[in-house]
Amino acid sequence: MAMFILNESFYVDYLQFKVRWARSMYKPHTYTSDMQYPHTIFWLVYEGSWKLHALDRELVAKPGDLLVFPPNTLIGLNRGENESIRYLSLCVDLKIGNLDLATLYDLPLSTSLSDSPQLESFTSVWLEAVRSFDTLGELITSKMPGLSPAASHTHIIHTDISLSFLGLQGVLYGWLKQLLTIMRSHLPDEPLRFDHRVMKVCDYVRHHIDKPVRLREMADHAHLSPSHLSHLFVKTLGLSPLEYVRQVRLQLAKEMLAHSTSSVKEIAEMIGYGEQSQLSRYFSQSEGMSPLQFRNAATSANSL
Amino acid sequence: MAMFILNESFYVDYLQFKVRWARSMYKPHTYTSDMQYPHTIFWLVYEGSWKLHALDRELVAKPGDLLVFPPNTLIGLNRGENESIRYLSLCVDLKIGNLDLATLYDLPLSTSLSDSPQLESFTSVWLEAVRSFDTLGELITSKMPGLSPAASHTHIIHTDISLSFLGLQGVLYGWLKQLLTIMRSHLPDEPLRFDHRVMKVCDYVRHHIDKPVRLREMADHAHLSPSHLSHLFVKTLGLSPLEYVRQVRLQLAKEMLAHSTSSVKEIAEMIGYGEQSQLSRYFSQSEGMSPLQFRNAATSANSL
Repeated sequence: MAMFILNESFYVDYLQFKVRWARSMYKPHTYTSDMQYPHTIFWLVYEGSWKLHALDRELVAKPGDLLVFPPNTLIGLNRGENESIRYLSLCVDLKIGNLDLATLYDLPLSTSLSDSPQLESFTSVWLEAVRSFDTLGELITSKMPGLSPAASHTHIIHTDISLSFLGLQGVLYGWLKQLLTIMRSHLPDEPLRFDHRVMKVCDYVRHHIDKPVRLREMADHAHLSPSHLSHLFVKTLGLSPLEYVRQVRLQLAKEMLAHSTSSVKEIAEMIGYGEQSQLSRYFSQSEGMSPLQFRNAATSANSL
Repeated sequence: MAMFILNESFYVDYLQFKVRWARSMYKPHTYTSDMQYPHTIFWLVYEGSWKLHALDRELVAKPGDLLVFPPNTLIGLNRGENESIRYLSLCVDLKIGNLDLATLYDLPLSTSLSDSPQLESFTSVWLEAVRSFDTLGELITSKMPGLSPAASHTHIIHTDISLSFLGLQGVLYGWLKQLLTIMRSHLPDEPLRFDHRVMKVCDYVRHHIDKPVRLREMADHAHLSPSHLSHLFVKTLGLSPLEYVRQVRLQLAKEMLAHSTSSVKEIAEMIGYGEQSQLSRYFSQSEGMSPLQFRNAATSANSL
C-alpha cells in the first residue's frame, strides 16, 4: 500500500492565517465611532448590549452573540440605548488563496451561540488566544523596545518570540476549527471550485504590484491567452484581471493606511501608482472617502 | 495606552510550515536502503535499535532518541546488527523566510529524550498529529478518489477537508513548540539577523524560477545596486544571488522528482532550464547522482 503524502498540489497557498490582535475588550456606553478596517474582525459578546450598524443593517449585540465583520465593513457604533459592553475581539487576515474566508463562506454578521453546547469551549480557546497574544505582544515590546521594525531593513529572528508565536498560532488554528465546526451546518460543502492558474496569476499580481501590471504579462505568466485568462477570472472571482489588480492595490493602500505612518504619496509609489492624485481620486471614487479619512476610520477601528 | 497590533512587519513570511506526512512506522531488521529526501524528517524511536549513516556519521538510534534529518540528507540504513524498529515519523517543510529551520538552528542529528520530563507529552502530541494526519489522508482519498489534483487545473475547496486540515495544523504548531521548548537550552537566542530586502529578492526568485533570472532584475526588485545586493546575499545566506538561484532550482528539481511523475525534460522547463541536458549535467555535478537516481532514492525515502 502506498503511503499517503501531502504534496504541493494539495496546498496551493492553502490558507493564510495571520492574526492582528486578540483582546478582551470593554467599551463604555458613551463610546461612539464610525470605523472601517481592512481585515476581518470577530467579536464574542459576553456582557452588555449594543446597537450597531454594519452592512446596511442595524443590529443589537447581546451576550452569546458572535459577530463577524468582513474586511472593510463600515461599522457604526452610535450612542443611544447602549449599555457598556464586554466582548472578546479577534482581528485576522484569513484567506484561502486570495479569497477572504468570511466572504467565501458567507458567514452571517451575527449568530447567537447562547444555546450552543460549544459556547463554553469556544470562549475558553478564545481566552487562551488572548493570553497567548498578550504574552507575544509583551515579548515583542520588550525585545524590540521603541523599534518600529519597518523603520529598519534588519530583521532579527528571536528564538523566544518564535516560540511564543508558535504557541499562539497553534491556539488560533484550534479557534478557527471550533468556529467552523460551530458554523458547519450553515456552510456549503464546496464553497468554490477554482482554476489553479487564476491563483498563480493572483500570486504574480501580489509580487508585481509596485509596477504597472499588464494583462498580457498576467496571461503569459499562466501560459494562457488574455481572453482565456479574463474568462477564468470573471468565472472565479467575478472580476476582470485588471479590475482585480485595482482591487489588490486598493486593499494594499488600505492596509498601509491602517498599519503604517507612510504618506499617501509613499503609499501610491509602493503600489504602483505613478501619481498620488491618481490614487486619491480612485480611492475617493471607490470608497466615498479620502485616503486620510480612511486612515482616521481605521485608527478608531484599532480599538475594536 | 496604544493597543498592540501585530502588523505586516512582524511577519515577513514568518514561518512556512507544511507537513508531508506524520506516521507511526515499523521497519523489519532486514530493511536496507540508501535514501535522500528534499524535506526535513523527524523520528522519535520507541522500540528497537538501528545503526544508520547520515551526515558522515554513524549512529545508533535507540528508544527515546529524537533524530533530525535536514532536507537532502543522505541516509543509509544498512543491514547489520539491526533489530526491527518502531518510531514516529514526521516529514515537513519548515522554513523561516527561505531558511530551513533545522539548519538555521543547527538542530543535532540525534538527541536522547529518554530522561526528559517532556518525552511523554511530546510523544502524545506526536501521536495526535499522526491520528490527525490519517484522518485528513482518508478524507482526501475519499473526496478526491483516484484524482491526482495536479493532473487537473481545477481546485476544489472542500469544507470538511479544510476543517480536518485546520485541526492537523493546530496540532503541528503544538508539536513544533514542544520540540523547540525541549531543545531550547541548545538554541541560540538570535540565530540570525537578516535584511528584509534579501527575503524580498528570495520571494522574487521563487516566483520567476521558470524564466531566466538576472542579477540586474533581482537588484532592481529590491531597489539596490547589484553589488549591494550581492554583498547582502553573501552576508545573510553565504551565497551570491546567482548561486542562490541555482540552489532554488536544484531544490525545486528535487521536490518535483520526489513528488511528481513529471519527466526530467518537463521539470527542466518548469524551473527555467532551456535544455534537459543542462539540468542533468548540473544535477550530477552537484549531487553525485543523476536526476533519476535521485528519484529512486526519494521514492525509498517515502517510506521513512
